[in-house]
Amino acid sequence: MILTVTLNAALDVTYHVDALVVHGTNRARDLHQRAGGKGVNVARVLHALGHDVVVTGLAGGGTGADIRRDLAVAGLRDELVDVAGESRRTVTIVDDDATVVNEPGPVVTPDEWAGFVTRFDRLARSADVVVLGGSLPPGVPVDGYAQLGRAAGERAVLLDTSGPPLLAGLAARPAVVKPNRHELAEIGASPQHLRAKGAGAVVVSAGADGLIAITGEGSWRARPPERVAGNPTGAGDAVVAALAAGLAAGDPWPDRLRAAVALSAAAVLHPAAGAYDVDAYARFRPTVSVEEC
Amino acid sequence: MILTVTLNAALDVTYHVDALVVHGTNRARDLHQRAGGKGVNVARVLHALGHDVVVTGLAGGGTGADIRRDLAVAGLRDELVDVAGESRRTVTIVDDDATVVNEPGPVVTPDEWAGFVTRFDRLARSADVVVLGGSLPPGVPVDGYAQLGRAAGERAVLLDTSGPPLLAGLAARPAVVKPNRHELAEIGASPQHLRAKGAGAVVVSAGADGLIAITGEGSWRARPPERVAGNPTGAGDAVVAALAAGLAAGDPWPDRLRAAVALSAAAVLHPAAGAYDVDAYARFRPTVSVEEC
Repeated sequence: MILTVTLNAALDVTYHVDALVVHGTNRARDLHQRAGGKGVNVARVLHALGHDVVVTGLAGGGTGADIRRDLAVAGLRDELVDVAGESRRTVTIVDDDATVVNEPGPVVTPDEWAGFVTRFDRLARSADVVVLGGSLPPGVPVDGYAQLGRAAGERAVLLDTSGPPLLAGLAARPAVVKPNRHELAEIGASPQHLRAKGAGAVVVSAGADGLIAITGEGSWRARPPERVAGNPTGAGDAVVAALAAGLAAGDPWPDRLRAAVALSAAAVLHPAAGAYDVDAYARFRPTVSVEEC
Repeated sequence: MILTVTLNAALDVTYHVDALVVHGTNRARDLHQRAGGKGVNVARVLHALGHDVVVTGLAGGGTGADIRRDLAVAGLRDELVDVAGESRRTVTIVDDDATVVNEPGPVVTPDEWAGFVTRFDRLARSADVVVLGGSLPPGVPVDGYAQLGRAAGERAVLLDTSGPPLLAGLAARPAVVKPNRHELAEIGASPQHLRAKGAGAVVVSAGADGLIAITGEGSWRARPPERVAGNPTGAGDAVVAALAAGLAAGDPWPDRLRAAVALSAAAVLHPAAGAYDVDAYARFRPTVSVEEC
């Protein structure tokens, strides 16, 4: 089983309007809403790939209830833990481009955090791989991911976050971290530095240029066969899902990277985060180039 | 007891942002959400005035659950009837002015409508006054308010809607209708015409100019003592609440109009719809001018 953790679970709400009238009244043609946040989207992809996956993290209020309802609709095993605060919505208003308003999200109390760590500890016992992903809500200590990584014990941990929570999380020696180029620059660290601080392997996502992996077994660069146009929102989540699946299966690194690049490109072709174009994935996978570097 | 009906109950969600960046990502400083829709806001004002009030109408889905939770928080008696569709949210993004996105709202099935009419019939038996307010959701017949007006039997009905539902609703001979000047122009009808078609009295709201009432006992014009600056959103709901309270008490028309104009001005001074400035109401009430016309 792969356990994904989303401490700041969200309800992603999307409206389509003709052309957004600022300081006016707009009629949404439709309403789409689905549970989101990095761990949830990674779990969707893993579920679609046929993996046994469990979603945990924190959710609260009416929006938390909406999130849980949508996980049930998606057939995802929901082990989210309740908090008193209101989970955040991300509101996206689409005309010819997207205007996003992000809610602040809940503040997590020390008791809620302690309760979550206990629940996580129990869940992690039946996991092969643990995915820790996304931002920390206010109230969760900056070393929250390090605490969870330690609680995960022997289980392989894949950490996908940024800034101080990423740096602090290295203390728990995650098997894989997956910053993108921007996130690396933001913390002023090289992949080698992250490995020296505790990461087993560092996979850097470079958008349409593919992935660079610096691991204990070697270093590789993986490139997609073609540039694909579409919605890049879910590309990173697809990479994490493929890496988690490869970690669970013990696949060689070149195979993991091949799957990750192909799945990421197939996700770009799908309009929703957490989903991918199944045919494109099968077509892309044998055509990804992987070179040692 | 005063029964208010909101067939298209809403969750009014408000975000404050620094300056809305179109086609960018905005961080909401805060989140306010409350149950809304005309009948709900009228009920809030009546509750604040100390009246025994019951809220009914239609609500569904996660947003319906949010609406009901907020009615409980407000201490309003909730007799909303569940529908399968998702109740609408109105999303307001405020920087120096308001940008509004309205969700489409649920489609009501014939069975749901029939079930509501039955429930309404039972609730109306213990009501002194029934307030029918707001738009009809898709699926409710255009003569929906006429059906409810007939089901209300001997109870005095106050109808506050616009367009075809207003015209069709006159068949049930409501005691009072309250169009604003724009709504009158839209249907191309005079107050006299609405009375001839079945309205007992017509009260036309004219914004900062006050109210004009054409009734079986005479015609009056009521003007506020001063122009007040603020949020006009809840002004019409305050007028309806005051007229409903006056109808329940059997107050003379000049007293009803005095209360309605003062309460409306006091509502403009309050930032939220469904609320009013209590001190301003007491101060304004004796200073409203009411003249026969």
